[in-house]
Amino acid sequence: MNTVKLTIAYDGTDYRGWQVQANGKTIQGEIEKAIKKIFGKDHRLHASSRTDSGVHAAGQVAHFKTAHKIPEDKVPAALNSVLPKDIAIFEAEYVDSEFHARFDTKSKQYSYRIFPSHNRNPLNQRYAWCLSYRLNLSLMKKEARVLIGKHDFKAFQASDKKERSSIRRIFQLDIIRQKTFIIINIEADGFLYNMVRNIVGTLVDIGRGYLPPGSMKKILNSWDRTQAGPTAPPEGLCLMEVKY
Amino acid sequence: MNTVKLTIAYDGTDYRGWQVQANGKTIQGEIEKAIKKIFGKDHRLHASSRTDSGVHAAGQVAHFKTAHKIPEDKVPAALNSVLPKDIAIFEAEYVDSEFHARFDTKSKQYSYRIFPSHNRNPLNQRYAWCLSYRLNLSLMKKEARVLIGKHDFKAFQASDKKERSSIRRIFQLDIIRQKTFIIINIEADGFLYNMVRNIVGTLVDIGRGYLPPGSMKKILNSWDRTQAGPTAPPEGLCLMEVKY
Repeated sequence: MNTVKLTIAYDGTDYRGWQVQANGKTIQGEIEKAIKKIFGKDHRLHASSRTDSGVHAAGQVAHFKTAHKIPEDKVPAALNSVLPKDIAIFEAEYVDSEFHARFDTKSKQYSYRIFPSHNRNPLNQRYAWCLSYRLNLSLMKKEARVLIGKHDFKAFQASDKKERSSIRRIFQLDIIRQKTFIIINIEADGFLYNMVRNIVGTLVDIGRGYLPPGSMKKILNSWDRTQAGPTAPPEGLCLMEVKY
Repeated sequence: MNTVKLTIAYDGTDYRGWQVQANGKTIQGEIEKAIKKIFGKDHRLHASSRTDSGVHAAGQVAHFKTAHKIPEDKVPAALNSVLPKDIAIFEAEYVDSEFHARFDTKSKQYSYRIFPSHNRNPLNQRYAWCLSYRLNLSLMKKEARVLIGKHDFKAFQASDKKERSSIRRIFQLDIIRQKTFIIINIEADGFLYNMVRNIVGTLVDIGRGYLPPGSMKKILNSWDRTQAGPTAPPEGLCLMEVKY
């Protein structure tokens, strides 16, 4: 058996997230259908992250096992020829048979885009959270610092999802202004369910003055989801890179 | 009667262009429906440009006449509340009753985005022409220079559309690299049907080495559409600004 590692980009707008579900189109479902057409038979695809409904990816990684060997440089074009326009395979690679896209992850990087705008903006709202209020960026940067490092991020975990451990290590958290956008880049060894969007929602509440300075530290140490801000909407979020 | 000037942005992907047609959704049609809901009665909307199917706008301008006077700062939010998500009114202004969005135009600026990429890219292809070949930017810039100024642009006019005069003045034509994108900005006193897309298609043929240096001058002076390059696809094009 050969293990194929795929690097994948998608516009998540019209999908119910990565994972195959009883109802509705999913990214995993579409790619598994494409693999069946090209490689024959059913293949189960395992992703580094099961991204949520509406979340995008520029560098998702997934793997599957197959008996069929197509030259790796032919795989992207072959799969892309049968995939919908909003999903694309960037790269395919035959890797060690032990490789697992989910369990072997060393770090993942997400990027969250905010578009501060008084009006609705049809050309920006597909890949950004359009916000009508001004944000204090320097305060957001200062408050974000306490999140860097190894912590129990329970306060930023979706309250209906429980993982064995809510301890994660954030390697980097940068907040930058890029032209008219505000970009929040977060790299960690792993993320709890909704963790990035809950951190972003909290940072925005701080940046707009709804939560006072010092809030982030308090919230982090509270281990209490109800202390943190709202979950930022999915359209601003993009899985950028997965490292192994 | 009051004359209302609207500044409008839209994602043209899912529309059959600006102008109302017998079949299919159009931008004009959607905004006229919204105006009817808010102002009552039917109102005819006149745009500076009847953008084509799939073309976007960040600063389209249109006007209509109405007996009904809603405070101008309330108009955008009122119309936006009943418009689809991919169309938005940025600004409304009561202007001189003689004002005409199409006939009073002094200049229009279009921007065309190219994304040079070996693979399909789901996150960029909605607002850019994804091209799999490399482009010689300095050659494109050099060749583009002959287009600036007042010329007969017949060679870049859609062959099935004839306007009284094909003479236009291009004020500015800039080709810039912006991160991974190539942006072509063109400002002129007016544009023939498909003129921007035909210029872009020709520039790309030059940039990829398909047409030799010196081609642009020859094509411009030929007055012959068949000499120029192909019509670039609509998704890269955006009407940026209209000046009066």
